[in-house]
Amino acid sequence: MRNIYHEQLDSLGKELARACGLAGRAMARATRALLEADLAEAEGVITDHREIAAVSSRAESTAVSLLALQQPVAGELRAIVSCLKLASDIDRMGGLAVHVAKIARRRHPRPVLPEPIRPLFAEMGRVAEEISTTARDVLLSGDAETGAQLRQHDDAMDDLHDRLYEQILDDWPYGVQAGVDAALLGRFYERFADHAVEIGRRVVFEVTGTLPPEQEVSTY
Amino acid sequence: MRNIYHEQLDSLGKELARACGLAGRAMARATRALLEADLAEAEGVITDHREIAAVSSRAESTAVSLLALQQPVAGELRAIVSCLKLASDIDRMGGLAVHVAKIARRRHPRPVLPEPIRPLFAEMGRVAEEISTTARDVLLSGDAETGAQLRQHDDAMDDLHDRLYEQILDDWPYGVQAGVDAALLGRFYERFADHAVEIGRRVVFEVTGTLPPEQEVSTY
Repeated sequence: MRNIYHEQLDSLGKELARACGLAGRAMARATRALLEADLAEAEGVITDHREIAAVSSRAESTAVSLLALQQPVAGELRAIVSCLKLASDIDRMGGLAVHVAKIARRRHPRPVLPEPIRPLFAEMGRVAEEISTTARDVLLSGDAETGAQLRQHDDAMDDLHDRLYEQILDDWPYGVQAGVDAALLGRFYERFADHAVEIGRRVVFEVTGTLPPEQEVSTY
Repeated sequence: MRNIYHEQLDSLGKELARACGLAGRAMARATRALLEADLAEAEGVITDHREIAAVSSRAESTAVSLLALQQPVAGELRAIVSCLKLASDIDRMGGLAVHVAKIARRRHPRPVLPEPIRPLFAEMGRVAEEISTTARDVLLSGDAETGAQLRQHDDAMDDLHDRLYEQILDDWPYGVQAGVDAALLGRFYERFADHAVEIGRRVVFEVTGTLPPEQEVSTY
């Protein structure tokens, strides 16, 4: 009985890691859709979000069943509670990739981003992919140290976000719509990274029983 | 023993309702700070967020203890799982009020919003207050019907949000910074309402055992 339980708990973690990987892939594709005004890629991200939402919802059901049937305590209880929270974070990461894809779709065939800030977004896309891959690996390994380090990765995203806002607010000859689009997009990438950090924070909680302090709410 | 447990569960629900009320009050104050360029009010919202975060974090600890000590099943298990999720939503609602307050603080003593869109934000503030009061009442009453109706309240916010974007993108002589501020602020109010809807959705789940479908991810 306990063995089946541990198998279920293990496969729940793997499912969440898979969903996290899918969310990372979605953001990578959304970035491509954005930079290359690729409508098919944008549509793909929007359609495929169903899978992330389904995995996330299934993970929540599994977690509730495990709580009901196995009445876990201590570390196992923490692990399952973490899974409940993680399912929301991962679903939201996928949702943010959808937001990016929808802006690309809405402006198609025009490119959303003026030339000078395209490298910034290419870099934000790269960091988003990196941070979600690390979060996925942390979910699989349960490595609290790497989990805590996700916050440092997030600093790179915050820097990019700050640089973006400086460019938009300083000298921006591309009009209000492009400015609003770029600002919202910047926020979506930043929130994506925040959720990945939250995954690391949860894994630390799971392993150590102590929840690290929440992130500072960003200034903008 | 079971009586103490029910008391704890009951007081957990009340704590969350209190936090939801605080988040609503925070957004009302943040709206005032925004419309009246009131720095003290903005600072108050930012400082007082600690209380919402503390209630939310305490609620999560209580929920985990109840799971560990009482090994609940069926409806009670669902109630506690809901509380875990709700604590995150409410904390986030408070965080969004902080975002609004921070923009008001950053632009002080200048008003953030050009005159013509101030009524829109006054109205968004009113809807935010209304929706969070309803969410708080639903948390106290456990009334699934009113919980499901929160989605309709949210439609009012979405309409206001759409009207705001039309104004920003159509003919906007106030510059990029004001446009970006208004767009981000609009998004904060919209997300605030989304989390209130999520509270209703959770209460429906708690009462009926079935989670209503998730909201459509908004287009913008």
